[in-house]
Amino acid sequence: MTTRYDYDRRQRIGMPEAILCEGKDADSLTRLVEELADKPDHPVLLTRLLPDQYGGFPTALAQQLDYDPLSRTAMLNGRLPARSGNIGVVTAGTSDLSVAHEARRTLEFMGVSATLIADVGVAGLWRLLEHVDALRAFDVLIVVAGMDAALTSVIGGLVGRPIIGVPTSVGYGVAASGSTALNAMLASCAQGVVVTNIDNGFGAACAALRMIGRD
Amino acid sequence: MTTRYDYDRRQRIGMPEAILCEGKDADSLTRLVEELADKPDHPVLLTRLLPDQYGGFPTALAQQLDYDPLSRTAMLNGRLPARSGNIGVVTAGTSDLSVAHEARRTLEFMGVSATLIADVGVAGLWRLLEHVDALRAFDVLIVVAGMDAALTSVIGGLVGRPIIGVPTSVGYGVAASGSTALNAMLASCAQGVVVTNIDNGFGAACAALRMIGRD
Amino acid sequence: MTTRYDYDRRQRIGMPEAILCEGKDADSLTRLVEELADKPDHPVLLTRLLPDQYGGFPTALAQQLDYDPLSRTAMLNGRLPARSGNIGVVTAGTSDLSVAHEARRTLEFMGVSATLIADVGVAGLWRLLEHVDALRAFDVLIVVAGMDAALTSVIGGLVGRPIIGVPTSVGYGVAASGSTALNAMLASCAQGVVVTNIDNGFGAACAALRMIGRD
Amino acid sequence: MTTRYDYDRRQRIGMPEAILCEGKDADSLTRLVEELADKPDHPVLLTRLLPDQYGGFPTALAQQLDYDPLSRTAMLNGRLPARSGNIGVVTAGTSDLSVAHEARRTLEFMGVSATLIADVGVAGLWRLLEHVDALRAFDVLIVVAGMDAALTSVIGGLVGRPIIGVPTSVGYGVAASGSTALNAMLASCAQGVVVTNIDNGFGAACAALRMIGRD
Amino acid sequence: MTTRYDYDRRQRIGMPEAILCEGKDADSLTRLVEELADKPDHPVLLTRLLPDQYGGFPTALAQQLDYDPLSRTAMLNGRLPARSGNIGVVTAGTSDLSVAHEARRTLEFMGVSATLIADVGVAGLWRLLEHVDALRAFDVLIVVAGMDAALTSVIGGLVGRPIIGVPTSVGYGVAASGSTALNAMLASCAQGVVVTNIDNGFGAACAALRMIGRD
Amino acid sequence: MTTRYDYDRRQRIGMPEAILCEGKDADSLTRLVEELADKPDHPVLLTRLLPDQYGGFPTALAQQLDYDPLSRTAMLNGRLPARSGNIGVVTAGTSDLSVAHEARRTLEFMGVSATLIADVGVAGLWRLLEHVDALRAFDVLIVVAGMDAALTSVIGGLVGRPIIGVPTSVGYGVAASGSTALNAMLASCAQGVVVTNIDNGFGAACAALRMIGRD
Amino acid sequence: MTTRYDYDRRQRIGMPEAILCEGKDADSLTRLVEELADKPDHPVLLTRLLPDQYGGFPTALAQQLDYDPLSRTAMLNGRLPARSGNIGVVTAGTSDLSVAHEARRTLEFMGVSATLIADVGVAGLWRLLEHVDALRAFDVLIVVAGMDAALTSVIGGLVGRPIIGVPTSVGYGVAASGSTALNAMLASCAQGVVVTNIDNGFGAACAALRMIGRD
Amino acid sequence: MTTRYDYDRRQRIGMPEAILCEGKDADSLTRLVEELADKPDHPVLLTRLLPDQYGGFPTALAQQLDYDPLSRTAMLNGRLPARSGNIGVVTAGTSDLSVAHEARRTLEFMGVSATLIADVGVAGLWRLLEHVDALRAFDVLIVVAGMDAALTSVIGGLVGRPIIGVPTSVGYGVAASGSTALNAMLASCAQGVVVTNIDNGFGAACAALRMIGRD
Repeated sequence: MTTRYDYDRRQRIGMPEAILCEGKDADSLTRLVEELADKPDHPVLLTRLLPDQYGGFPTALAQQLDYDPLSRTAMLNGRLPARSGNIGVVTAGTSDLSVAHEARRTLEFMGVSATLIADVGVAGLWRLLEHVDALRAFDVLIVVAGMDAALTSVIGGLVGRPIIGVPTSVGYGVAASGSTALNAMLASCAQGVVVTNIDNGFGAACAALRMIGRD
Repeated sequence: MTTRYDYDRRQRIGMPEAILCEGKDADSLTRLVEELADKPDHPVLLTRLLPDQYGGFPTALAQQLDYDPLSRTAMLNGRLPARSGNIGVVTAGTSDLSVAHEARRTLEFMGVSATLIADVGVAGLWRLLEHVDALRAFDVLIVVAGMDAALTSVIGGLVGRPIIGVPTSVGYGVAASGSTALNAMLASCAQGVVVTNIDNGFGAACAALRMIGRD
Repeated sequence: MTTRYDYDRRQRIGMPEAILCEGKDADSLTRLVEELADKPDHPVLLTRLLPDQYGGFPTALAQQLDYDPLSRTAMLNGRLPARSGNIGVVTAGTSDLSVAHEARRTLEFMGVSATLIADVGVAGLWRLLEHVDALRAFDVLIVVAGMDAALTSVIGGLVGRPIIGVPTSVGYGVAASGSTALNAMLASCAQGVVVTNIDNGFGAACAALRMIGRD
Repeated sequence: MTTRYDYDRRQRIGMPEAILCEGKDADSLTRLVEELADKPDHPVLLTRLLPDQYGGFPTALAQQLDYDPLSRTAMLNGRLPARSGNIGVVTAGTSDLSVAHEARRTLEFMGVSATLIADVGVAGLWRLLEHVDALRAFDVLIVVAGMDAALTSVIGGLVGRPIIGVPTSVGYGVAASGSTALNAMLASCAQGVVVTNIDNGFGAACAALRMIGRD
Repeated sequence: MTTRYDYDRRQRIGMPEAILCEGKDADSLTRLVEELADKPDHPVLLTRLLPDQYGGFPTALAQQLDYDPLSRTAMLNGRLPARSGNIGVVTAGTSDLSVAHEARRTLEFMGVSATLIADVGVAGLWRLLEHVDALRAFDVLIVVAGMDAALTSVIGGLVGRPIIGVPTSVGYGVAASGSTALNAMLASCAQGVVVTNIDNGFGAACAALRMIGRD
Repeated sequence: MTTRYDYDRRQRIGMPEAILCEGKDADSLTRLVEELADKPDHPVLLTRLLPDQYGGFPTALAQQLDYDPLSRTAMLNGRLPARSGNIGVVTAGTSDLSVAHEARRTLEFMGVSATLIADVGVAGLWRLLEHVDALRAFDVLIVVAGMDAALTSVIGGLVGRPIIGVPTSVGYGVAASGSTALNAMLASCAQGVVVTNIDNGFGAACAALRMIGRD
Repeated sequence: MTTRYDYDRRQRIGMPEAILCEGKDADSLTRLVEELADKPDHPVLLTRLLPDQYGGFPTALAQQLDYDPLSRTAMLNGRLPARSGNIGVVTAGTSDLSVAHEARRTLEFMGVSATLIADVGVAGLWRLLEHVDALRAFDVLIVVAGMDAALTSVIGGLVGRPIIGVPTSVGYGVAASGSTALNAMLASCAQGVVVTNIDNGFGAACAALRMIGRD
Repeated sequence: MTTRYDYDRRQRIGMPEAILCEGKDADSLTRLVEELADKPDHPVLLTRLLPDQYGGFPTALAQQLDYDPLSRTAMLNGRLPARSGNIGVVTAGTSDLSVAHEARRTLEFMGVSATLIADVGVAGLWRLLEHVDALRAFDVLIVVAGMDAALTSVIGGLVGRPIIGVPTSVGYGVAASGSTALNAMLASCAQGVVVTNIDNGFGAACAALRMIGRD
């Protein structure tokens, strides 16, 4: 058996190890999930689980998984206990929804409330300005945006809460699979914005969890 | 003599050839400017003329040039006749001023009015929102911004006039000498924004001139 | 409902919001188009709508759309009223036609006339030189070219009208999915050429609309 | 006067605007600092102020500045009131010290305590393991590292507190002015690590301030 | 016949030529393998042989091949004689297994023992620290890791044996098909780590063979 | 009809225009080839014609084409008259054969003899050294190689004839779809080697034709 | 003595080895040139010899060198015997002159005539069209151009002679130190254009020499 | 005191920590070297120590250092005891000497013999072929080459010993500060070649030390 799950991680850093499914061959993945299914007191999250991969699991195993195709996540053995904190997940456009839902599902799995505010990109600035007070009330903001990612900078100049930018791979040409959004967020003129890897809704949720802290 | 100035260009496209001085060796540059000084009915603009290059001209020649070190431009043999049109030159931050002034000086040389609206970057959004009506009154807007270049997208969503984005090479790290600003402008979520090369205030002014059209 | 269409944009900047379909999941896209179909006084353009996406719409909805597979655009609720102005859309080669048609269809939707002049790449320069007078007669020129994009520079030196370069992703190897064409256009030796994102015929048409101005 | 300082930012997001001095011409910079010196109730931080730029200020103005050459920061009009919170600033190697001090000085200016733990790069892993308990006691960790940036991942796997990675531009060859460190941090196998621009100690400090929150 | 196998290579450098199958058209590949099958005293290894390519061989030829789909390798005409040496193949995560098995199969073909130690990535550092003594006992270590590749640096600081880093193309976004892992390994703060091309388990095994030397 | 074939090119530069089929939609391509088939005195070469594209032609049209799937070329209306000159086409490995055949077929179409010398990559240097005298006897050498492209430099140091390097997109990881081979050829330590785009066997053949000159 | 000059190269490939001076430390360079000065029957060319490097030679040695600062070349021990052939060296702009002169001086050293046609960039197309007949009369054309490098494509469509493109590092922003010119030349729509490294006038001259062939 | 030297590293991995001086500020560097000078039983190597940095040390400290400007290395507190093994350091050209000497000095410091074979680049292949037997006699080969780095592949096909490629940053244009050499080495067609960071002669020497093993 070549795969070793890190069962102690939750105790060490407050969050369990998640399984990144993309790129794993079917056999290794099935063996790993079967092993985890045998430890019902260890809730586990699977991320970037493609419908084809999910469809390839033995039926009994698939039924144990709480799978959501939009966010491509599955939960196994339930969730972590609920805890306080309220996270805002904001998106610039409809194409960013898959990544935003990955963040929301991860928070849900971790026991934390999350609220989605979608489609407030700066090309229609008034949509965003209506939400400024709401945005200021969250503990942490996760801003999901692709292409020019200007939304992150505008929110960063309006709100003093922690802001985690998640660049997305939407768009074409110079959007460059998310590189431009990533660089624009990192070079944001709004001070103190921090950033995750492209499309990494899971990572943003984990970062938010670190920030709302020790309950 | 190996350099040949394109004296017919103004007749052909409405604008004279300009001399890009950067990268030209001192001898070739001096010979070229001396030749042009002998044709006083051909106003000529020199761009990216470094102070050191300007200082290297023979004194008599230097005195014939109307040199501005901030924009690194010089005019020779006067300017083109005044014509109608009013161009707005908008900058996100103080570091963009040199490029903005290159655009303004080029317009001035071409005989067109230009107005500078500086330091309205989106990190302090209210500074920009105060100017929306003014921005809508210009014939063309030149938006000069570096780093995340979010200003271009926000203006593009508020104003229906032609918008020319000029990315600048300010910033460090992922700002990447202007590449991030360039790509963010090209990937702007605001529709119909067009873009020039990095730091190319001259090109933006020429584009504006093309747009205000045949007088 | 997580998607919010910006119904006020046409009033704000003279052009309605368009729907970029690429990368949107089928459910969100259908829900959004159904909502828009319920507002027949709001003409809407859909861009980068792949045949498979179009085929996935409910039949009734598909029939309401005026879909063109070559340009991958669809119009819903008719078009904007006709307005003056004549735009030239020029292509270097046959492979650039899809992008050129996206520009032409967008202009058509916006109520503006457009004329296509195809296959005048500089490898057969005489084809282009025959059209110089025609090119000078347009209000705005949209030049669609891939690979070395030399056509943009040659036209830029011959014609004084506004020139919008649209780099295309045709070619292989160093063509690099349009990056070389993009950079060559931005570095054009012809002054005052402006550029859009790769393959962005829609954006070029919107820019042209901004330029022909307030009717 | 073309520069406009955003005096309301502190009220809006809890932190005043800082002046990024790099790339600003001497005249604009002096005028801006003189204006700010006239408002003694607005403490201001200057960042990336090179010794040459500092030396170019009028003597009286220079004396009003609390300048630190290692971090290239200056404080004007005092500091913000002290507030609770304790931030750990960790570095991999000696070459990262300048950036680490920029973070520490920024926190000091903002009124927050910061502790430096230097030279604990993973090539000598035992140096780091000695500090694990100390690291777990901070409210937020800022991890400053260049080259392979492996330190961020190792700490991220050991500590559950918020972790802000600051890639540095040290090293040569593939270190690529910090790009490799940046990408390695963004691709970290430790979940929930967030990242700033290369060498952006100031941004990391602002992010930490956002995280320790509303006093 | 246009393909020429280098039959003398084993005599020249101690290892036979291997056939890189990826990118070869079916006809050329079949002809080449048939020719090699006729020389039973020349053991040959085929690498990056996709299941589809293997499936396309004539049945008789396919049966002569010892094919392993996980590592995508096939052996023909047996293996080289066994020789001394023990190589450790270490992986950071489950997704790296395919490349690790390519290394192990290559060593097996070359007659050398290899031991796999999987899933010891630094996010769960204790998994690695348990193996330090074992790692020190190998003649050569092949460390297979993607994304941030921090594992290579940590092992490099703990073990004095030759360490060959093999970056893998796992991950998404800034992982950039293995470029970040490659650069992080090359920029490793651990001294004397050497690196192969991305996903090149075969090359790492050959390098190890060069290192264990002349039997 | 939007496509215009450049019938005068052969008279102008000695070679007819070729049709790059890749990226052309089926309708445009069929219409263009049908038009050309109506002019039997104009021999035409089609390049990068994928089997699927060829299969999509009407049967009668397909039968008029002399199609070769390995080189992905088709000839229509015969070939150009035979002329003197002998070109050597050299490849480093089997994977380079498709590109080499594109060069050879193009030369054949142009009426020039070509000889293929395959599989003489420098990893088995003796294979190459056997051919040095033969290589010196060609009028022009086309060297087709991917990955490190070292073959070009070695031949360039041994032979004084014109050498055209054609980098190929074979390989994986840092081979980067041919970029490394391209750059290695351009940076070759052998003086006077010239280079074409990646995989551009057609262009190399045209360059050779230019070199053997005016018959 | 660690440097070994390849005295046999001229016999092998018809051209002597040249000394690339850039990047060589002063001591090694002086020792090497002194050794070569002792073999007066071996004419040698030094390239990219900066004025500072030239100034650092012992006076006696410097006087033996025929140094030209514009092209940064020096000849030692005379030149090769004159031979037939006439090469055209064409430049787009004044900034390309240094590279063009490197090509011309190299040809001069090799004993071949070269003619410079400068400043015929396509922004003023008529300048170029005047020279078409002259261009067609050369044995080989070396086209030196930066930025968009459109000149190469236009000439390639007009002239059937061998065309060697030399991209130059002039320009700023997306010109990217010559990368855009390089890629635009390699992606040229004119068939059979070949290319050298950026700024490599020496290499282009050597390639031309290979093409004019065996006298 | 913020810098902590890893005194235990030699015991852990058989080599002491070296001090990378580039990028360290003068004060930190002086303090660190003074501390190390107080521990005379710990021989230490300083790398990438620029002459200006060396000149900035207090005289007494400078005199304790054995400094070599060509390799930019300094030894402090003597060297490690001599041990068996013989390493060949091979260079393609004169410009690679500085890096080659860094490797040789590092080996010398570590107590291992090294032999330099310079200027055997493949453009003059016969220079290399003369040395094949000598090359086969070394325990490990370090091959230092820039630009196309073809030397590594040719040696890798001739010699079965461990081969460590060190790409160098010599050359211009596409040489790209060593990136092309790096990628060409990693993509080498010779099997089992391993590579270090660009210009990293120190790292190559450490790798060689790991390979010659436990004395």
